[in-house]
Order: sequence, then C-alpha cells, then structure tokens
Amino acid sequence: MRKFDEQHELDSMNGALKLRGEINKIIDKINSEGYSNVAWLGQGGTYASAMQAVIHMKEKSSIETFVQNAAEYDVTGNKRITDKTLVIISSVSGTTEEVVKAIKKVNEVGSTVLGFIDKAGSPLAKLCTHVITYPENEQLKFFMVGDRLMNLAGEFPDYDEFYKEMDEHFAEDIVEVAKKSDSFGKEFAEKHHDDDIHYFVGAGNQWGATYSYAMCYWEEQHWLKTKSIEAAEFFHGMFEIVTRDTPVTVYVGEDSQRALSERVAKFLPEICGNYTIIDTKDYELKGISEKYRGEVSPFVFHQINNRIDAYIEHINRHPMDIRRYYRQLPY
Amino acid sequence: MRKFDEQHELDSMNGALKLRGEINKIIDKINSEGYSNVAWLGQGGTYASAMQAVIHMKEKSSIETFVQNAAEYDVTGNKRITDKTLVIISSVSGTTEEVVKAIKKVNEVGSTVLGFIDKAGSPLAKLCTHVITYPENEQLKFFMVGDRLMNLAGEFPDYDEFYKEMDEHFAEDIVEVAKKSDSFGKEFAEKHHDDDIHYFVGAGNQWGATYSYAMCYWEEQHWLKTKSIEAAEFFHGMFEIVTRDTPVTVYVGEDSQRALSERVAKFLPEICGNYTIIDTKDYELKGISEKYRGEVSPFVFHQINNRIDAYIEHINRHPMDIRRYYRQLPY
Repeated sequence: MRKFDEQHELDSMNGALKLRGEINKIIDKINSEGYSNVAWLGQGGTYASAMQAVIHMKEKSSIETFVQNAAEYDVTGNKRITDKTLVIISSVSGTTEEVVKAIKKVNEVGSTVLGFIDKAGSPLAKLCTHVITYPENEQLKFFMVGDRLMNLAGEFPDYDEFYKEMDEHFAEDIVEVAKKSDSFGKEFAEKHHDDDIHYFVGAGNQWGATYSYAMCYWEEQHWLKTKSIEAAEFFHGMFEIVTRDTPVTVYVGEDSQRALSERVAKFLPEICGNYTIIDTKDYELKGISEKYRGEVSPFVFHQINNRIDAYIEHINRHPMDIRRYYRQLPY
Repeated sequence: MRKFDEQHELDSMNGALKLRGEINKIIDKINSEGYSNVAWLGQGGTYASAMQAVIHMKEKSSIETFVQNAAEYDVTGNKRITDKTLVIISSVSGTTEEVVKAIKKVNEVGSTVLGFIDKAGSPLAKLCTHVITYPENEQLKFFMVGDRLMNLAGEFPDYDEFYKEMDEHFAEDIVEVAKKSDSFGKEFAEKHHDDDIHYFVGAGNQWGATYSYAMCYWEEQHWLKTKSIEAAEFFHGMFEIVTRDTPVTVYVGEDSQRALSERVAKFLPEICGNYTIIDTKDYELKGISEKYRGEVSPFVFHQINNRIDAYIEHINRHPMDIRRYYRQLPY
C-alpha cells in the first residue's frame, strides 16, 4: 500500500476521538451560558466541511445552524451572526487570509469563536475564544461539536452509546476500510488518472466532502479537471452532458440522503458506460451499529479517496504538495 | 438580433413589476399574522434562484432566511421549517416531482406557502396557500417578496423610492442592455460555442444565476460542459487547473460582493489568455440610482446571457428546447 502508515492512522483517529473531553468542556460551558445559533465559517476545504456539519445536524436538530463562507462574510456580513452566536472554524495553517479577516469582524460583533487550529500561536489561534490544537480529522472534530450541542439540546439521547462504539472500534474499522479499498483505489487511479474531466456526485453529509474532494484534491493537488454535483441536482440539467464515455463517480452513503445518490446510481448505467459507484455498504464496520453507519459514511469515503490519491499521485508523477498558484503568487 | 422581441421584453418586465400589488397584499397579511423565518425551496433552476434571494436579503436583513433544496427536504427534512415558516416556491410547469413531494410535506407541517406557479390549476398551484400566476421573471418575483418583507421589518426604508425608479425605467433599461450586448453575445458565442468545458465565476446575488446559467442553460439546453464556481472559492483549489487556453468567464456585478469577483477578474489575466469579464458597470441604466445598481445586476447579466444563448443555439444548430434525458426517460 502506497502512502499508508497503519499505526499513524490508528493513532490519529484515536487521538481525535479523545479530544471529545476537551470539546465537551467548552461546549457545555457555551450551552450553559446560552447561544442563539451556530455558524460554521470556512473557506475552500473548511467551507466544505462546514456544509457537512450543517447537513449532519439537520438530520436531527432544530437548532438554527448555517454555513458562512468567510470571504462572503467579509464583504456582505450576516446579521444573523450576533454576540449570541457560536462560530466554529478550522484551519491547518491558522493564516487563511479570508478567515482571519472574518474572525476579526466576528470578534467585533462579540460572537463566541471555537477554533480547531492545528498551529498553536498562529494568527487565527490568537483570535479565537476557545482553541483546540490537534492535526487532521477536521470532519470528526466538527461532528463531535455538533453531536454534543444536539445531545445537550435533547436531540441525540443515545450520544453516549454512539461514542462508546466509536471510541472502541472506529480507528480499527477505518484502517480496515483503507486496506480493503486499496486495490480498488489503484484500479480506479489507473483508469482515471488522465481524464479530461471527472464528475463526482454526492449527497447529504458526503456532499461537502464531494465538493472538496473534487476541488481541493483533484483540481488543487492533482491538477485534474472535475465537476462536483449534488445528487438531487444531477437530474436538473447536468446529466444532459453525460454520454457513453463521460467519467462519473457516485458516492452512495448511508445517511438520510442515501436515496438521492441511489437514484443517480440506478439511472446512470442507462446512459453512461464509464461510471463508478462507491457504496459504504460494501465496507464492514465492526462494532458500529447499523443505525450509526450513516453518521460515519464520510469517514469511510475519506479512506477510499485517500487510496485513490496515493496511486494517482504516483502514476502521474505529480507530488500532491506542489501548487501552481496557491500562495505562490500575489492575488 | 436573433430571438429578441422588444415589445415582449417590455411587456414581460412591466407586467412582472405590476405583480407587486398582488404580492404585497399577500406578504402584508403574512407579516401581520407573524412568521418566524423564510425558506426559499427549489430544485435545479429554482434552487439557484432561491440562493440569489437569500444573498439579496442577507445584504440588509436580520430575518432568518435560508435555501432549502426540495429533494433534500423530502428525505432529510428540516426542523427549522415549522407552522410559523413562510415557504416560497416558483415553478413553470407546476409539476416538478421533488417540489410537489416537498410541498405536500410542508403542508403537513402547516407552513404558509407562497407559490409563483406559471400554470394555473397545476398540481403545485393546488398545494400552495397563495398562488400568483405570471410567466417568466422568477428572480424579480423573488426579490419583490424579499424586499417587501424587509420593508415591513424596517430594513428597507427607501423601498418606495427604489420601486418608483424600477416601475418607471427598468423595462426600457433592460431592453437597452439587450441591444447593447447583442454584438458581444454574438462574438462570445462564435468563440466559445464548441468549448470542451467552460468555467463561469460569480458572486453575491449573481452566484445562483451563475450556477443556473452553467447548469440549466449550457449543460441542459446547449449540451456543453461547464463548471461554475463562487468567486471567493476560485482561489481555494479550482484555479490550479486554469492555464493559458482555459475558457473562463467572470461576472462582475455591483452588489456587496463585487470585490470578490473583481479579485478574480484582476488576477485571471496573469494565468489565462482565454478569459472574459462581463461587468454590469459597462451598461447604463437610465433612471436607476447608483445605490440601487447592485440590486439589479442579475437582470443585466440575464439579458447578456440571453444574447449569448441566441447565437450559440444557431451556430450549433441545437434548438434549446430539446432534451436528451430530462422528462424523456424514467429515472
């Protein structure tokens, strides 16, 4: 397996799950002080993760929660973000220009800001009310925040049961997904590493990740053209350009929007001979109850996507760390 | 000018503006009875218009307002949609499957539904609390609803002044935009009618229209591949695949997010030799005050896009009414 360090994966996931104590201390305090709504603020990849967090919460919650693009907030603002708002961000570098500007503005408004900032002491870390520093696992961090908020609001009564299963089994499950999907990832990469354009279809708590995988991985890191589309929207315009050889990949997860992706997966073979269906149901998750599989579908897909990336990177002899323009030029 | 009927355009816009009396009677009643939030529910093109309505309101409003994709509502629901919610929809046929299903569910919840349904007596028309029937001008109808809500909430005090200018001048202004942009539309069509893929960049109250123009016009009606991207997101991944010959069009409007599109328009020529900037500032709007030009930028772009479409349709000898799959096959 290329680029796969089993012990690192296990440690990374288990470490992230252990953040829950720290997260809950902060969320419990915010909850007891009262908040009116929850804004997930991001840009690029973190904007995508924010979309996932909102959909994740919508399944159960009546809490007002929304995505806020950082750059849009910088110019248009959002009057729903007040001193009673909980704003949540995530950043690897802690320096993303648009987010720094947005959080400065949010601080003037007086919102509470919880930041998952991987670099301690960075500009963003200094601007947050509460900072948690731990690398990777952005989506899990966001879900743990949302889950605690819902738990405290009485909307996720079996929270403890769910996280007991996660803590005990999930890191190992995820490693097994990576191992099982490795040969698929290699075959997929061999087939699609030179596509003129590749279409990715996703729904529900996988939509944000679909948007992000297309844009932040294939476009940004592999320099391959893509288009991502919400499964529900596929039938309202986009599918007219799909013909026999159009490469289309559909993510079929197990959350409430599974039916939307399944609809695409069922119809696609009628009009396209170059499709791929990636279904989380094909992957065992030992110790995770059936009813929770939908919540964790994005993590399963993430492992599969990582396998694809490892092989595309090598076949194309294009190291994923290089950028043509991002932070290379002024703009 | 191909496919342009000046009198039809004038009548269509003036007739739409005259709907304001009918709209306000309904909105004033809903407002006096009280509502908690406003959901713009749509699918495909109407989902895109809903995005525009929300951004339009965000500029001024603290009313809770959001976009709801119809198909997603059908499976995931949304607990923020209650019997105190005003739900707004629009439909040409009145039969869009996902929206019919969603509105049936919304009716069980007990929300108030205002529908702009072009076909009287259609299934959707029968499901709405209030129905307005008038063809075309979807975006204007939505903006008139949002503007009245904001006016009643004290957030748009110069509402009367704005609509006085609109009623007196806008139909003629829009016809002038069409005439002035016709030769541009023809040249653009000649250059891009056979592009492998075309990129469209938009922001603010033009983002929804950018998404829709790419998907519901180029993909659905011209069978040309596209990708649409929010201007703010352009720098976070997508631009890595832009090189000398990549066709990219940027819409630069005059609303609060102008700076985001301008940033793309300024940088793009450094990395791309096949770009087009469409800027509403190049178009005079007689009788419309400077401060209102941002509100109406989408209508200016819409006329320009129509000019492009008229010529692409002819050059490609591809009538825009034909569909490969949409409502042709079961799915």
